[in-house]
Amino acid sequence: MTPRLVLATRNAHKVVELRAILAETGLDVELVGADTYPDIPDVKETGVTFAENALLKARTLADATGLPAVADDSGLCVDVLGGAPGIFSARWAGTHGDDAANLALLLAQLGDIDDPHRAAHFACAAALALPGGTERVAEGRLRGTLRRIPTGTNGFGYDPILQPDGDTRTCAELSPDEKNAISHRGKAFRALAASVAELVR
Amino acid sequence: MTPRLVLATRNAHKVVELRAILAETGLDVELVGADTYPDIPDVKETGVTFAENALLKARTLADATGLPAVADDSGLCVDVLGGAPGIFSARWAGTHGDDAANLALLLAQLGDIDDPHRAAHFACAAALALPGGTERVAEGRLRGTLRRIPTGTNGFGYDPILQPDGDTRTCAELSPDEKNAISHRGKAFRALAASVAELVR
Repeated sequence: MTPRLVLATRNAHKVVELRAILAETGLDVELVGADTYPDIPDVKETGVTFAENALLKARTLADATGLPAVADDSGLCVDVLGGAPGIFSARWAGTHGDDAANLALLLAQLGDIDDPHRAAHFACAAALALPGGTERVAEGRLRGTLRRIPTGTNGFGYDPILQPDGDTRTCAELSPDEKNAISHRGKAFRALAASVAELVR
Repeated sequence: MTPRLVLATRNAHKVVELRAILAETGLDVELVGADTYPDIPDVKETGVTFAENALLKARTLADATGLPAVADDSGLCVDVLGGAPGIFSARWAGTHGDDAANLALLLAQLGDIDDPHRAAHFACAAALALPGGTERVAEGRLRGTLRRIPTGTNGFGYDPILQPDGDTRTCAELSPDEKNAISHRGKAFRALAASVAELVR
């Protein structure tokens, strides 16, 4: 029987992305979204690192469902902001998940900052928690430069303003396959796949 | 004749604060606000540190007026945000100088963050620029913890949420004299006063 893995997100974009990433690793697991299970408690993201928050979310879901659970916490880290928005990326403008407001606020904050100081990276921590207590976490990064004008319609979040180093397009101009090949989330989940293969049967 | 010193700010709160700080050092200078002089060019704050931006503002004003000029750049640095808002403090919510919006946004961003991780400090760089090219800069800090609910009506900016270490009140509950005695701006300008005394005659 194919083992089942629960993904701790209500973000449909992330379920699709992660399914593609895990498929390419050849792992034989059934990935289901957390919304398949009722009564999952809300997780207060009290961690101060991506890894802490990813583990909090995976642990809560594993305990609630009795199944292996994976979660990620990811965000945009801007050099001149000392790594912020970081773990606060999804609620940067104050309301959780308002991508357009988050992106507009960041561009306004950085309005006076010239190109040499617009370096940034996406970071992702991917966590696996088993019902018995075992936990693993892996991290990935994608470095680039922040554009002034959002460009492209793929992806989500801050994708339209990060131009990966070595490319002339933003992340939102990459195809899903191109993005997964280089993205912070792709790197983190491919690194975590080894733990999934070892521990989830 | 009392030498004249131009202060690079249109923020009336800062003019009052600085006048009090310089008065207590016994320096015999006449402090005038930049709005006394027409046609002062707008300064694009392209620096990435408080010191760079303070020097940019002081230099622009000294060159435009032919007088010794002082400027400060200051802000709130939150540990869990890697030092942000930092140099972006005054435009944190996207519009320059909207204190209420800046403060509300920061509290919303930190909503999930518990007290042990709410350490922060105010930082200030105070700069002096002379028409001939001479420049000096001095820095000061005030460490504390961020409250969840704004308290107090004195001061401005983020004063209502920073509780200085060793006190039970916020900066906005301190009298102007109490605040100047311990504040980042007080420390920076008292340190700069030595340079003013030496160079401005």
